[in-house]
Amino acid sequence: MLFKWIAELLTRRGGYEVQVSSGTTATTREDFRAMVKTMMDYKSALDLLDWDAQTQMPEQGVQARSDAMGMLAAARFRLSVSAQMQEYLGELAASATLDPVTRRMVAIGQREYDRNCKVPEARFQAYVTLTTQAQSVWAKAREEDDFASFAPWLLRVIQMKREFAEYWGYDEHPYDAMLDEYEPGLTVAELDATFALVRDQTVQLLDRIRKGRKPEAEFLQRYFDPARQRDFSRWMLGQLGYDWRSGRLDETAHPFCTTIGHGDVRITTRYLPHFFNSALFGAIHECGHALYEQNISGELFGTNLFEGTSMGIHESQSRFWENIVGRSESFWEHYYPALQSHFPDQLAGVTWRDFYAAVNVVEPSLIRVEADEVTYNLHIMVRYELEKGLAGGDLRVADLPAIWREKMQAYLGIAPGNDRDGVLQDVHWSSGLFGYFPSYALGNLNSAQMAHAMRRALPDLSALIGRGEFAPVRAWLTDQVYQHGKLKTAAQIMMDATGEPTNATYLLKYFAEKYSPLYAL
Amino acid sequence: MLFKWIAELLTRRGGYEVQVSSGTTATTREDFRAMVKTMMDYKSALDLLDWDAQTQMPEQGVQARSDAMGMLAAARFRLSVSAQMQEYLGELAASATLDPVTRRMVAIGQREYDRNCKVPEARFQAYVTLTTQAQSVWAKAREEDDFASFAPWLLRVIQMKREFAEYWGYDEHPYDAMLDEYEPGLTVAELDATFALVRDQTVQLLDRIRKGRKPEAEFLQRYFDPARQRDFSRWMLGQLGYDWRSGRLDETAHPFCTTIGHGDVRITTRYLPHFFNSALFGAIHECGHALYEQNISGELFGTNLFEGTSMGIHESQSRFWENIVGRSESFWEHYYPALQSHFPDQLAGVTWRDFYAAVNVVEPSLIRVEADEVTYNLHIMVRYELEKGLAGGDLRVADLPAIWREKMQAYLGIAPGNDRDGVLQDVHWSSGLFGYFPSYALGNLNSAQMAHAMRRALPDLSALIGRGEFAPVRAWLTDQVYQHGKLKTAAQIMMDATGEPTNATYLLKYFAEKYSPLYAL
Repeated sequence: MLFKWIAELLTRRGGYEVQVSSGTTATTREDFRAMVKTMMDYKSALDLLDWDAQTQMPEQGVQARSDAMGMLAAARFRLSVSAQMQEYLGELAASATLDPVTRRMVAIGQREYDRNCKVPEARFQAYVTLTTQAQSVWAKAREEDDFASFAPWLLRVIQMKREFAEYWGYDEHPYDAMLDEYEPGLTVAELDATFALVRDQTVQLLDRIRKGRKPEAEFLQRYFDPARQRDFSRWMLGQLGYDWRSGRLDETAHPFCTTIGHGDVRITTRYLPHFFNSALFGAIHECGHALYEQNISGELFGTNLFEGTSMGIHESQSRFWENIVGRSESFWEHYYPALQSHFPDQLAGVTWRDFYAAVNVVEPSLIRVEADEVTYNLHIMVRYELEKGLAGGDLRVADLPAIWREKMQAYLGIAPGNDRDGVLQDVHWSSGLFGYFPSYALGNLNSAQMAHAMRRALPDLSALIGRGEFAPVRAWLTDQVYQHGKLKTAAQIMMDATGEPTNATYLLKYFAEKYSPLYAL
Repeated sequence: MLFKWIAELLTRRGGYEVQVSSGTTATTREDFRAMVKTMMDYKSALDLLDWDAQTQMPEQGVQARSDAMGMLAAARFRLSVSAQMQEYLGELAASATLDPVTRRMVAIGQREYDRNCKVPEARFQAYVTLTTQAQSVWAKAREEDDFASFAPWLLRVIQMKREFAEYWGYDEHPYDAMLDEYEPGLTVAELDATFALVRDQTVQLLDRIRKGRKPEAEFLQRYFDPARQRDFSRWMLGQLGYDWRSGRLDETAHPFCTTIGHGDVRITTRYLPHFFNSALFGAIHECGHALYEQNISGELFGTNLFEGTSMGIHESQSRFWENIVGRSESFWEHYYPALQSHFPDQLAGVTWRDFYAAVNVVEPSLIRVEADEVTYNLHIMVRYELEKGLAGGDLRVADLPAIWREKMQAYLGIAPGNDRDGVLQDVHWSSGLFGYFPSYALGNLNSAQMAHAMRRALPDLSALIGRGEFAPVRAWLTDQVYQHGKLKTAAQIMMDATGEPTNATYLLKYFAEKYSPLYAL
């Protein structure tokens, strides 16, 4: 088989070795696209090697895998910053007649080129070394609940991120340069107003919920046979429209979704025998990511536009399917009989309304990844405010544990008794991932905003969900979001799909409408 | 994670981009080894992508996978024939002080360089196109039992292989150049004498067996639950010493073994509910390949010596474990109680001696891949003699069906009534794989010859097998064969391990000693 591929490659014009110094724009365009295709092929291989490492690989295979991935990543990286790439980007950016797809490909390529080139190589190496060590220190510090041992490392990480922000550049706030890494173009100025509103309104809602009538949910912790959970999850993914010919479901400690290539979008979940929610809602969440990736236009395959446009849009899809569809009243009115017949003993005497209420219990907790949809955003607000302060130089690392507790108390009404369940709980900062958290909250905002817009086109949305008819829902999302991949920016997607920029209105409205009856507020 | 690998790569000296024009031999040595390591990393990625395609990949992922593998194969291929590689090889070959490992690496690298460079690119492309088409034609021709439609394509394939033989070069027979592809250095002159002996003696043995007392074996076709077969196969692999921390067992239509990298050697088998032999002996066969690969010295990891030295040696290991161990009397005397308690209904009233006899039934059949260990070699002899005639220009393609039937009748005593079960049964020729079949028979010869030599060191070999004590067996094989990888040639392995070149004596002796009592000859 390999012979065939080699020969095919040899017969094809192009690849990244072709010289184009005397070419026309059309030639450059083809050569540039061939080079991008090569980079995407490297990415495909890397994504598969990574997926395999997390799902299938024998334990002794780590070193060999690390070597192979390192080589492939370096090869891909070199192309992204090559002189040839620079030449293509310059020539094509200057062309007035470029087609829109290639124009956008050039913009994305330029962005990656800049990000990778602006940081001096020695500083990038120092950063990687630092964060690798910082992660080990963090893991130990969290285990031993010892923030003091982690503090000097966190200080160095944030100092280096601030240094990088200067290389990358920003208009107003150093944190803008960090946000930009995950949500291109997003700024502190935009987030501040929106997030303050989300925070204040959610805190008020939570106050009311605390005084409301708390649903019974203990039955979710009965024994649910993992094999039967798997069967039900698989069946449910098919109901939602996950294309099994283009995907598969496996089991990992931390669920994820990964796109290996066109026609190959894989998801994972985990089956906890004594907590029903984890597997099914985890699977639906990842299915939301997968529906996005499975429905990107095939015409974009092989370009650097063949992926979700931003983390905030991607997360909107996982949240839309998990919460707005999967935790809705009409959804369970329709699907509960199937679930109950699947788990007759565990759900004996539980009505669909009981079940619907139970999977929507709102309860302040210390750990972000276990939070319900209402309190989740408050966890993000704590992190956002701290990151912004650190990035701007307004906060001292030593003060973080105390500020963390204050904010948790103020927003969620509870505070951790130790740092392990507080400021040390997330891996992100030790890995240098500043600017990443806000996207989770943006995903929630976007999901509700899209659902609102979708109802203009599909006024009977709840009825559709209540009949398990998801084809029109997927069609709307494909039309507005999925098919475009990275061809549109996140901001364009939101404007075109909803008519307004991302804002807090619709999520807060959704919360109010959903939780008032549930908690008899 | 990727960031880390990139940085690590950037900080490492070397990789294939380093220029060494003014370097010392020591520098060249390091650069050459770094380039080979890169090629092996590409191979690792390719092997994983291929394994995944055969075991895990969603059906719609074919095109993307083909693209990624094509790119990686081409990148690896370019390195193997690069001017830089040529320079390294030339400089290092001239060095008088090179360490033995690097010296052998240079020899292997030179061999690959020559093989890939000697055929003009246009002819190689034509070959790939031709064999791709020929395979489709063959598949249809086999289905329709229509040799005439395949004949002109086969003619073109063999003509092109003869042309390639001229590029590659040979001393005596064009077929030598084809054999060399799978069994470096092997010639028609060597094979002719050995194979004639195997053929004539086996034909005589088979005549006697036909007149002997045929064991009862119908119980092997009772219903054996696939899940229970899997459990037993997994348990048995552990008994033989397959390292589960460095491997895994999956299910595919065609069993295979593949090495992804150090610490990652995977095997597959298939579970037929109504034929017991397929899964267990298939798994043991692949386990033999895997034991070889799992026990290559870790010091060779990352070099082009980190794999089995030839197909004939590799096949000797699968056959040793499958037949000489797994189909032996003492093996089943020991393991039959475990098997019987695993399948009490299916094996009710079957003694271990019945079972041992049943898995060793000798029965001439038309299809090679279903043949027992005695008749198998006769299938190979038919193919060897035909290939040699085609390669030498002594045989006409149009005459193949008739000659096939003649030889089958003469050697096995049966002949196919159609070409589908005759000359059209194997994919090899349509794919251009001339010279590949003999390695299967060599594997059988080598396995018996090694077993004979092993008995000099382990006189109680049968008793060890009869106690399930395989550690000394693996230790001997690791010492003599496995650890060396490609550091020794196949001929060196056989000389060092057995004291003589590959010959027919020991396989024939093994057959006589085993089948005389079994068939009461």
